[in-house]
Amino acid sequence: MLAPGAALRYTANVVLDRLRVPIVQAPMAGGPSTPALAAAVCEAGGFGMLAAGFKTAAAAREDVERLRAATRAPFGVNVFVPPEAPANPAAVAAYARRLGDGLGKARFDKDDYDGKLDVVLETRPAVASFTFGCPDAGTIDRLRHAGVETWVTVTTAAEAAEAAAVGAAALVVQGVEAGGHRGSFAEGEGDVGLLALLQLVRAETDLPLVAAGGIATGAAVAAVLCLGAAAAQVGTAFMRCPESGTAPPHRDAIGTRRPTALTRAFTGRMARGIVNDFMREHSAHAPKAYPEIAHLTAPLRQAGDPERAPLWAGQAHRLALELPAAEVVARLVRECDSALAALPSSVERRAEQ
Amino acid sequence: MLAPGAALRYTANVVLDRLRVPIVQAPMAGGPSTPALAAAVCEAGGFGMLAAGFKTAAAAREDVERLRAATRAPFGVNVFVPPEAPANPAAVAAYARRLGDGLGKARFDKDDYDGKLDVVLETRPAVASFTFGCPDAGTIDRLRHAGVETWVTVTTAAEAAEAAAVGAAALVVQGVEAGGHRGSFAEGEGDVGLLALLQLVRAETDLPLVAAGGIATGAAVAAVLCLGAAAAQVGTAFMRCPESGTAPPHRDAIGTRRPTALTRAFTGRMARGIVNDFMREHSAHAPKAYPEIAHLTAPLRQAGDPERAPLWAGQAHRLALELPAAEVVARLVRECDSALAALPSSVERRAEQ
Repeated sequence: MLAPGAALRYTANVVLDRLRVPIVQAPMAGGPSTPALAAAVCEAGGFGMLAAGFKTAAAAREDVERLRAATRAPFGVNVFVPPEAPANPAAVAAYARRLGDGLGKARFDKDDYDGKLDVVLETRPAVASFTFGCPDAGTIDRLRHAGVETWVTVTTAAEAAEAAAVGAAALVVQGVEAGGHRGSFAEGEGDVGLLALLQLVRAETDLPLVAAGGIATGAAVAAVLCLGAAAAQVGTAFMRCPESGTAPPHRDAIGTRRPTALTRAFTGRMARGIVNDFMREHSAHAPKAYPEIAHLTAPLRQAGDPERAPLWAGQAHRLALELPAAEVVARLVRECDSALAALPSSVERRAEQ
Repeated sequence: MLAPGAALRYTANVVLDRLRVPIVQAPMAGGPSTPALAAAVCEAGGFGMLAAGFKTAAAAREDVERLRAATRAPFGVNVFVPPEAPANPAAVAAYARRLGDGLGKARFDKDDYDGKLDVVLETRPAVASFTFGCPDAGTIDRLRHAGVETWVTVTTAAEAAEAAAVGAAALVVQGVEAGGHRGSFAEGEGDVGLLALLQLVRAETDLPLVAAGGIATGAAVAAVLCLGAAAAQVGTAFMRCPESGTAPPHRDAIGTRRPTALTRAFTGRMARGIVNDFMREHSAHAPKAYPEIAHLTAPLRQAGDPERAPLWAGQAHRLALELPAAEVVARLVRECDSALAALPSSVERRAEQ
C-alpha cells in the first residue's frame, strides 16, 4: 500500500497494457470468488478480481489483505452500484407471500457502497470495477487520484457511451451469455450477445474493452481479441477450480449439459443460472426489486438445496473443467495460441493455380 | 443443371472448401432475399442463398432459374422444415380475437415442404439449408445423391448432435443475436449467444460450421474463424443493399439505434425484430402456433406499417450500411484481414527486456 501522501503517477490503462496474459478472472460475488482464486490467477499472469458485493466492507477489506499477502501482482475489486430507491413494496410483499414462510426479511439497502468505496480508496487495488451502474465522475476522479483505475461493466452501447463520458478507464463488455447478474444499469435492459455487443460498443468508443460472457476456451479468447478486446474476462470457467469457493452442489451442476436461463427469481435483478425448480416455479412472477428479493431469499442460498438456491453459470458452463486455476489460465493461453496459429493471413482465397 | 442420370461424384463439403471468401449470405425469407442479392454475393466470391420459405414452390423454382441466369457460381436454397401438427386451436383463436378484425385466416400448412424438396432435387443447387428442424436421413441421402449438400441450422448443442447423426454436411450455428426467426427445432428453445454456442457445438461435432448471428463487421468474421467456423453467415448486413428486397420502412429502421427483441407476436414462432408497437402490445400474449399466426398476420406484412409489421433485424443491425452487396463483401474481407493482421502470434506477453 502506498504511504499516505505519496506521489501518484496515474497512467490510463496501465493494467491492461501490462498483463502478461490477457485473462481477467471475473468477480463472482456470493462465494466463488476468493482471495486464493484471485491470487492463483494473478500468479499465472492473468488479472485476479475480488467481489465486494454481498459482503460487508470489513470482509471486503480482509479479502484485499489476504490477496496482498498471497501475491505482489496487481488485482481488482468489484463493487455493486446500488439502486437509487426501493422497489414497489406491494410487489415485494406479493412475491414474499408466493414464496411462503421461512425466508428472510425483504429490505432495501445500498450494500454499503460508500463503505466499500472507502475500502478501495484506502487499500488501492489496481482496478475498481463496477456493476449495476456507473459511478459518478467525482468518484472516478477520486479513484484515479488514489491510483485506482475504474472499469465499468456495460451491457449496451448506450451504457458504454455513458461510462466513457464520465471517465471510465476501461469497459467490461458483458454479453448475454454471462453467468450471474447482468451488469445492466437499468434492471432488465441489455440482452445482447457478446459478439454483437463488442462490435456495437467499439463503434461507440475507443476505450479499452474487457470482453465477458460465455468465454470457456482459448478459441473464444482469440475471438474477442479479434473483436478488439484487450482481454477476456472469464468467470464460470474458474468455478470448478479448487481455489474457488463455489458450493459443492453448485460445483456439481457446472460442467453438465443442463441449460441456463435468465431469472430475477432469486434477487429481483436479472441473472443467469442453471435452470432448477425454483426458477421454473417463480421466474415468471418475480418483481424487479433488488436488493429486496436478495434479502428475502438469503436463507435459500444458505441452505444450499440445488433446486432452491441459485446455480449461477454462463451459457458455456458445460466446458468448465475441474483444474487448478493456474492450469485453466495456461490452457486458455495454449488454446488461444493454437487458434491464432491456425488463422490465414488473409481470409480471401486467391485463385487456385 | 445435370442431365438426368448423369454420374454424380459427391464430395462432402465441397462448397465451404472452395469458397473464395468465407461469407455466406443468409437466406432471409419474406422479401429481403432476392436472386439479385444472391448473385451479387456469389460474384463477389461469397455464397449466395435463396429463401424458399413463405413462397410457393413455383416461385422458389423461378428464383433458382433467375439466379442461375445471373451467375455461374454455386449457391444455396433454404427450406423451412414444417411442424408436425397444428397448434392448439383455442390459443390461436384467443390471439386472433385479441388482434381484432381485418386479419388473415389462421391455418395450418406445411409451406409445401415436399414441393420445395422436389424443386431442390430437380434444380440441384450446391446446398440446401434447413431451418426449424432437421430433415430425415433419407431426405439428406436423396439430396446427396443429387449432388446437393445439406446444411442444418442449429441453435443448441443437442440440435447439432442430432443433425450430425442424420448426416448433415455442415451446420449453420445460429446465435441468439440473429435477426428473423430462430432456427430452433423446438419452438422457444435455443437462446444461446453465438460465441458460447460455437464452443458448445464444436465440443459436440467436427462438422464444418457456418456461424450466424450479429456478424456485422469483418472483425466479427475473424472472430468466428477463431472459433473454428468455416464461414460467417451474414444477413442483416445485406438488408440495406440495393439488391435486397427489404421493404422501404423496414430498410429505414435498420441502421438506427432502435433495440431488437425476440417475439412470437408476428408468426407464432420466435424471431428477432426491431421493437415496435405491435411487439410491445402483443409479444406477451402470442401463442406458440406457427404457421397459424403467420397466416393470421399476413395482411399486416402486406400493409407494411412499420409499427404493425415485423422489422426483422439482428442485434448488430445498427452497423448495417447502405452499400451494394459486393462492397459489403469487400468491406468485410478488408476488415477481417485487418483484424487478423493486428493479432499477436502468441497471446502471452513475455517478460519485458
